[in-house]
Amino acid sequence: MTYQEIVPLLTRILTPGQVSISDTDRALHAKDQSFHQPSKPDVIVWPESALQVSQILILANEYEIPLTAWGAGTSLEGNPIPVRGGILLSLERMNKIIAIQADDFQVTVQPGLGYKDLNVQLARYGLFFAPDPGANASIGGMIANNAAGSRTVRYGATRDNVLRMEVVLADGQVIHVGSRSVKQSAGFDLVHLFIGSEGTLGIITEATLRLSPIPEHISAIVAAFNTVQAAVETVVAVRGSGLDPAALEFLDAFSAQMLIEAEGLDLLPKPTLFMEFHAAHSSALDAGIKIVEAICRDFGTISFQATTNATERKKLWDARHRHYEIVVRTHPDQNFLVTDTCVPLSAYIELVNFIEQQIRQPNRIEAPLVGHAGDGNIHVLIPFDQNFSYERAQQLNAQLVKKAISLGGTCTGEHGVGLGKARFMPIEHGGALEVMRMIKKTLDPKGILNPGKIFLEDAPND
Amino acid sequence: MTYQEIVPLLTRILTPGQVSISDTDRALHAKDQSFHQPSKPDVIVWPESALQVSQILILANEYEIPLTAWGAGTSLEGNPIPVRGGILLSLERMNKIIAIQADDFQVTVQPGLGYKDLNVQLARYGLFFAPDPGANASIGGMIANNAAGSRTVRYGATRDNVLRMEVVLADGQVIHVGSRSVKQSAGFDLVHLFIGSEGTLGIITEATLRLSPIPEHISAIVAAFNTVQAAVETVVAVRGSGLDPAALEFLDAFSAQMLIEAEGLDLLPKPTLFMEFHAAHSSALDAGIKIVEAICRDFGTISFQATTNATERKKLWDARHRHYEIVVRTHPDQNFLVTDTCVPLSAYIELVNFIEQQIRQPNRIEAPLVGHAGDGNIHVLIPFDQNFSYERAQQLNAQLVKKAISLGGTCTGEHGVGLGKARFMPIEHGGALEVMRMIKKTLDPKGILNPGKIFLEDAPND
Repeated sequence: MTYQEIVPLLTRILTPGQVSISDTDRALHAKDQSFHQPSKPDVIVWPESALQVSQILILANEYEIPLTAWGAGTSLEGNPIPVRGGILLSLERMNKIIAIQADDFQVTVQPGLGYKDLNVQLARYGLFFAPDPGANASIGGMIANNAAGSRTVRYGATRDNVLRMEVVLADGQVIHVGSRSVKQSAGFDLVHLFIGSEGTLGIITEATLRLSPIPEHISAIVAAFNTVQAAVETVVAVRGSGLDPAALEFLDAFSAQMLIEAEGLDLLPKPTLFMEFHAAHSSALDAGIKIVEAICRDFGTISFQATTNATERKKLWDARHRHYEIVVRTHPDQNFLVTDTCVPLSAYIELVNFIEQQIRQPNRIEAPLVGHAGDGNIHVLIPFDQNFSYERAQQLNAQLVKKAISLGGTCTGEHGVGLGKARFMPIEHGGALEVMRMIKKTLDPKGILNPGKIFLEDAPND
Repeated sequence: MTYQEIVPLLTRILTPGQVSISDTDRALHAKDQSFHQPSKPDVIVWPESALQVSQILILANEYEIPLTAWGAGTSLEGNPIPVRGGILLSLERMNKIIAIQADDFQVTVQPGLGYKDLNVQLARYGLFFAPDPGANASIGGMIANNAAGSRTVRYGATRDNVLRMEVVLADGQVIHVGSRSVKQSAGFDLVHLFIGSEGTLGIITEATLRLSPIPEHISAIVAAFNTVQAAVETVVAVRGSGLDPAALEFLDAFSAQMLIEAEGLDLLPKPTLFMEFHAAHSSALDAGIKIVEAICRDFGTISFQATTNATERKKLWDARHRHYEIVVRTHPDQNFLVTDTCVPLSAYIELVNFIEQQIRQPNRIEAPLVGHAGDGNIHVLIPFDQNFSYERAQQLNAQLVKKAISLGGTCTGEHGVGLGKARFMPIEHGGALEVMRMIKKTLDPKGILNPGKIFLEDAPND
């Protein structure tokens, strides 16, 4: 069936303003923030209810039309690129807060809502949704990719903060998984099956999220070290202290230098840790800072700064969150492949050394390095341009991924598999990949949902 | 195939000491700690490796022999009762610690290990596995049932503390799910699919667990109130304070009275909260106690006691953990059906009132009530005896479960579905139950794994 034949069927379900085949709209939904090959959908739809999503899926399933869900397009692995064309289902207009259940520390939302917008609304209740991927991702996209960020070390990834969802299956059936109870042992954990499934098993149309109280007192700490080794050993010691940091981020000397130049931060161009601590009372915060300072000094910090001033803290984290944007802006002739390996904490130093010795030095590339060190997650921004091809950058990522997996880690801590990591799934999962494939086949027998993702045989060559 | 025919096949795989058809052994594996109808297996096997588990499963699958895994038999919902007979696969001898990865706050263990035994070994590393169901459950059983306990309010349930597992599928294939990386977004979350699946999807033969640092400083707080309402409102306020309690337990007046009489605790026979707080430094603890005291006084506490003394704290928690045993011991003529409903925190007071007004008063039963209030979980111990039948107790549980589900909650927060709650799965899950059924069929097409559990049509009448 061609898209010319699909459109009249879709317009029977939706209003004219909810369907587009314009080139502009198709181009706007052809790529996310990654550098994977763009691919335009045939038609974009903007459903406004689970019922409409269901009706669209019944149609797509009947005529075996590929259907890819779209949140905010901020993903970094091509996750929502409609590589087979077909229907692009944008959840942009399903962006409402259904209910704020403040006494339960929960909120029920539609998937198109941005998490930053959500947190603005929640602030008046003294609550926030903790996972923070940086960009203004949609809640649905965060769930689909199991997004995480700098606060995950304390508050968990998206996976750890979803209690209940409404999901539309490939055949249009609307189901509810999980419950608003924070403890659940009633049968198979379908909530977690759909989280991180990247729109390949069903379309999330509603989610109840677990919220956290906004901490009364927050400190920010910046510590610089002469060596990566010292910085990373400090991370392990801080994690072992029982202090429960709310963020524990590593920046290499190159990245620190960029934040100095671009943002005027008062840093040293050295391996640096950014930390944040949350507490219900200021004395706990002060005591915590003293413990952290002692640990940092034990490992030879050459600069230790702590603040409880909100403005200074905001400046620091804004700069950290702009790191990727700064890298891109200051290197107009280059693109960057963002890696996402994650390893057990004890292997972090080995992974970072591997990056230095096997990736950066032999290839003479200036690849900035930032990481959610407290979680063992590291992003290398591998530059590619006319002189250093995308293929070479991909080869370096493959080397890095294989190293991470050999260290007990994963090819992706928070960006998802999407297009770029399907090739690593067999080495990471072995026989378990076949179980994933069987589940995919069971829930989406015609393979209409976000085809070309997660499974290698489905992926386009790129 | 009769068990006489199975045994010779099993003895080809295992040594004679690993197979038993003795009446004593069969009787010892016919029931857990619940009051469900016992059912003897035909044969018990004690494999000592994943390879042996695999070989047993290949055999069971080929000849379509029911196979039920057994951890420590401490479950409360008949979860490991071999209701169809067949093979009882005891994991008792697979009880080793494979590796302590202290720098990663992880440990890799075999499933037969008791969590209390594990924590004794971990203490020297300053680490512990936080979920604490009370009884000396096995790690494998805790994972299979997604067990939880009083520390879940801070540290999560078992579900939140497993990173990677080795699982033997129904056909004998050995797979690995998850990774030792604390953040994982590489494809479908099979780890969580197997957690809480009660041995119906595969047999867990190894697991890497997430550990927590043993807190440097611990306080215990006991506060009594004149009304259940005041106690529960205090729970909500403490949860909202950002203090992050490590335990937040509710006992009704009747339960408090029993702990006074049986354990000599210095309590009032009133609705009572037991709380625990963990901190990395004592000043944080002291500040926390002041905040909690202020909250308790706001809600009219009639007795507030706080201690950081380890002996006093241990006495308190030992008594709390013996609650069930005390109830059973002091009521020799009665048995108790233990309910396990869990609701959003805001609905807790309504659920507790419902129990008082619709369960206890009209039926004139002395049903003690304890709950992990911080999580919205409540256990009613419904007595049954010659005068008040098991069927009536079950009817009361059904009333309670329906109420909990109508409040957005679940039939089971931590005990699992097992035998007793299969009947509630359709009302709790609706269409999602069919998805669970499809997954069961996909992973265990012959239905050999722990048949008769979770799904109503499989359950025996009891």
